[in-house]
Amino acid sequence: MGTKGDNNRTRIIEAADMLFYKRGYNQTSFSDIADVTGIPRGNFYYYFKTKDDILAAVVEARIRHYEEALVECDNAADSPRERLLAFVDNMASSEDTLVESGCPIGSLCTELAKDTEALQSKSREVFGLLRDWMCRQFEEIGFSDANDKAMDMLARMQGVAVMASAFKDTEYLHRSIGDLRNWINSLTLN
Amino acid sequence: MGTKGDNNRTRIIEAADMLFYKRGYNQTSFSDIADVTGIPRGNFYYYFKTKDDILAAVVEARIRHYEEALVECDNAADSPRERLLAFVDNMASSEDTLVESGCPIGSLCTELAKDTEALQSKSREVFGLLRDWMCRQFEEIGFSDANDKAMDMLARMQGVAVMASAFKDTEYLHRSIGDLRNWINSLTLN
Repeated sequence: MGTKGDNNRTRIIEAADMLFYKRGYNQTSFSDIADVTGIPRGNFYYYFKTKDDILAAVVEARIRHYEEALVECDNAADSPRERLLAFVDNMASSEDTLVESGCPIGSLCTELAKDTEALQSKSREVFGLLRDWMCRQFEEIGFSDANDKAMDMLARMQGVAVMASAFKDTEYLHRSIGDLRNWINSLTLN
Repeated sequence: MGTKGDNNRTRIIEAADMLFYKRGYNQTSFSDIADVTGIPRGNFYYYFKTKDDILAAVVEARIRHYEEALVECDNAADSPRERLLAFVDNMASSEDTLVESGCPIGSLCTELAKDTEALQSKSREVFGLLRDWMCRQFEEIGFSDANDKAMDMLARMQGVAVMASAFKDTEYLHRSIGDLRNWINSLTLN
């Protein structure tokens, strides 16, 4: 059973998650989060002492979100290649927000790559989760360079997200997601 | 002949360029630029009224920088494919800073993709310059989808920069730049 405290904490995390994505981490203040949630700033210092604490909670929430998405991909198909394609479908379902605000994971990492090592390592945790999952799929297909392939797949997705959001180009994004599918299907064992 | 005024203006732009890259646009204040240049804030309002004006000047400076780099690529080789490879060599010469702070163009676009349309369109001008140059090279090779190829090449470079800087992984960057060269060499006319 959730208490009112749990509920407030969750609302703060959800608002921060949205604001970090739409405006950026550095452009989001405690006041902004208070405005969106309607929870007075004074009250929510009870849940989070610093913005870095909120970032940690947002990253944890995103990890849970992607863990669930990966379980869905695992359940969507028996073959590892089909599971990777299911993950691409997951990306394709967010075309509009990708064009508007870029990739939530990549844009946070890009922003925090210029910050302290502590914030950097926090922001890359979601990438680590996805890379490890993709690596397992490529291993199961039989690739000896499964980790390289996982990094390549993430890089392709990130590159497409950067260009689609820089040029605000949905048509490019759509074509590139098709190319990503073709690439996954074309990979053969040597 | 440069005047003292021109010199101050240039120093402000160079300091802002470095700070936007190393810390991010939103994390750079007028005070930071004053600290780096040693020019009192009061004085440099004479050159730039707003931070957006400084951004415009930084983008113009980057455009001139890349225009010069592209002329070097043009002069480096007779064949368009070799020119594209020369551009990749240019990227390879900045491996350390790419790992540390990501791509200066991509990270600025990613940051400003979450901002006003005016700042977004300013930040994407450098991408536009590179895309058009790459497009001309692919056209000269004979590709009918030269613009798509140019977007693909930029996306690959961006994806690699995002992952290298997120994971602070020089070895990955080095391997991926090799893959980029192989990709350019492998492209054949249908």
